[in-house]
Amino acid sequence: MRGSANGDAGDRTTTSNGGTAVDKGADFANYFCTYAFLYHQKEMLSDRVRMDAYFNAIFQNKHHFHGKTVLDVGTGSGILAIWSAQAGARKVYAVEATKMSEHARELVKANNFQNVVEVIEGSMEDVTLPEKVDVIISEWMGYFLLRESMFDSVICARDRWLKPTGVMYPSHARMWLAPIRSGLVDKKKSDYEGAMDDWFCFLNETRNCYGVDTSVLTKSFSEEQRKYYLQTSLWNNLHPNQVIGTTAIVKEIDCMTATINDILNVNASIAPSITAENTRLCGFSGWFDVHFRGSMENPAQSEIELTTAPSVDHSTHWGQQVFLLHPPIHVSVGDDLIVNFSMNRTKENHRLMEVELSCEIRQSSGKLLPPFRNKFYME
Amino acid sequence: MRGSANGDAGDRTTTSNGGTAVDKGADFANYFCTYAFLYHQKEMLSDRVRMDAYFNAIFQNKHHFHGKTVLDVGTGSGILAIWSAQAGARKVYAVEATKMSEHARELVKANNFQNVVEVIEGSMEDVTLPEKVDVIISEWMGYFLLRESMFDSVICARDRWLKPTGVMYPSHARMWLAPIRSGLVDKKKSDYEGAMDDWFCFLNETRNCYGVDTSVLTKSFSEEQRKYYLQTSLWNNLHPNQVIGTTAIVKEIDCMTATINDILNVNASIAPSITAENTRLCGFSGWFDVHFRGSMENPAQSEIELTTAPSVDHSTHWGQQVFLLHPPIHVSVGDDLIVNFSMNRTKENHRLMEVELSCEIRQSSGKLLPPFRNKFYME
Repeated sequence: MRGSANGDAGDRTTTSNGGTAVDKGADFANYFCTYAFLYHQKEMLSDRVRMDAYFNAIFQNKHHFHGKTVLDVGTGSGILAIWSAQAGARKVYAVEATKMSEHARELVKANNFQNVVEVIEGSMEDVTLPEKVDVIISEWMGYFLLRESMFDSVICARDRWLKPTGVMYPSHARMWLAPIRSGLVDKKKSDYEGAMDDWFCFLNETRNCYGVDTSVLTKSFSEEQRKYYLQTSLWNNLHPNQVIGTTAIVKEIDCMTATINDILNVNASIAPSITAENTRLCGFSGWFDVHFRGSMENPAQSEIELTTAPSVDHSTHWGQQVFLLHPPIHVSVGDDLIVNFSMNRTKENHRLMEVELSCEIRQSSGKLLPPFRNKFYME
Repeated sequence: MRGSANGDAGDRTTTSNGGTAVDKGADFANYFCTYAFLYHQKEMLSDRVRMDAYFNAIFQNKHHFHGKTVLDVGTGSGILAIWSAQAGARKVYAVEATKMSEHARELVKANNFQNVVEVIEGSMEDVTLPEKVDVIISEWMGYFLLRESMFDSVICARDRWLKPTGVMYPSHARMWLAPIRSGLVDKKKSDYEGAMDDWFCFLNETRNCYGVDTSVLTKSFSEEQRKYYLQTSLWNNLHPNQVIGTTAIVKEIDCMTATINDILNVNASIAPSITAENTRLCGFSGWFDVHFRGSMENPAQSEIELTTAPSVDHSTHWGQQVFLLHPPIHVSVGDDLIVNFSMNRTKENHRLMEVELSCEIRQSSGKLLPPFRNKFYME
């Protein structure tokens, strides 16, 4: 799921021993609150690709659910918990941090599964279950997989509540990166330039009409606007023909074994080749896929994939994340890129990300263009 | 000033003795953070009506500032503090809760007032000044005056730091209400109906494709959408000809004497008459004005007014707040209304408001229409 995590505000607090912890009040105000709205739940429930993938993963693998115990981390409206019960689960614990849990409870009852599904309001880190479970199911993925850092809660759930023989739904996740073209690069440049033109008008007026010289703030204003218009990653639903080069995996996660440390950083070097003729490298796009394969000891009978790659017919509400380059660069088929991609949580808000992307281009002629490095904010 | 106070999230926390206090982490995430952006400060600094009023209030009343000490509550970019110094203040304390204080400090220095203006980062409730002051100046007004509840901080400042002989800038504030017509009523109705149509499609699909009956949630979804589309007050810049009846004051505040208790509730009965022929009463609009009159003992030489009433040429970034009636009611000149208006802070977030508006219409014929009462949310 992805919600609005407020990019403006931090969620850290200093603990009595001098460490930092997540400030729960701020975390709720920034992150959790969006999920308490039915409208937002409906948006996610209306994503056919998402719904089909989880539906098929469950119902084509009933052997994982029938007579088993299940934990649904972040149950929201309760849909995965209800499907698990419909697939024959003996008991389902459906944990939800927001008041949406009340609606989940209503939905469970209206669908006659109140004897199987127990909805528990609370955060995964705080609740106690009466037993360990055979399956942990969760739809935890944020934009570009890791935005919102919800997988932390799934790891916590797994380490506390999954039986040694248990399975994770999904079992695997991957992050992908590809070079792209996009008209957004022109729009954002124009927006930024408009904002700066406006600033200089404002500067003059404030000086002439009000006797205050605000020119000392120009640099900071410009940086703020650059960050907002040019350096903030964008949500977009790309057409596949906007992908102008080979795609590459920048992160692979085994949901059974990944630790919080493993997912704190994404760090990859990739070497995409340009596959389109005479085009502009306008930036890079990131997306993810997850797979439902079960475990080695207890595999799925039917392996299901949920992908958010650019698609004409199978777009999702996740879209892709777009990191724009200003200015765009002319490239053509045969040009090779060497890209270093790194992503980390911001200091101020553990649910938001900072990205560093450096790129070298070797043109098909052999000529090496000067390398560049850009910083981006996923807010 | 008005910012985005997140309507979704609460800002209360339970204290160890069982009381409730404002959760500072949530309050920052919900409220303060917007003011840390230069873009937002610039929006306010670009409001000519706002700027002219404060500029004129200060420079046409230099006797209040010359050789005096001043406290600017919520200095933001520092503009009022700089003007106070330009008007001859001996010392200005400019308090700002966000990192915008760093920009205020830069601006003060760049305009050569670092020996007069001391910028202090912190909340008014927490900072300590070395002395009491002759003037407290602040631009604290939110939408419809009291949204954001920033005046609480001004009262706190006044009670702690204003000399008995001191003056408040502004000195007085009033809230106004008037009956209006507006096409927004049709738009919001249409938005709401569209959302409900969409819900029923979703309901069918979820039942048919995914075997889950979500009809139990229809009532809650409908209430959520009603609240969002029909019961949430709107920002608008009204044309004066949309005001279809007499205007009335619903609250008067003397900034020198008002207590927090005085401003917790707005409660008024008013009797507007319709002044337009054959029109629709689509709702009510609220706005405010403030005045700079000085004090009884130490009056202004030049009384300045800042009004946010509907205007063609003098609109402000505050606009007006609009409370829509569904359905609108046909009225005409000579019809009289009896309106009870009450506004209180929400339990969840002390910076946001709940409004109850009840209305009786006596038509010019003498016929009394059935009274109605509506609830609104100012988020």
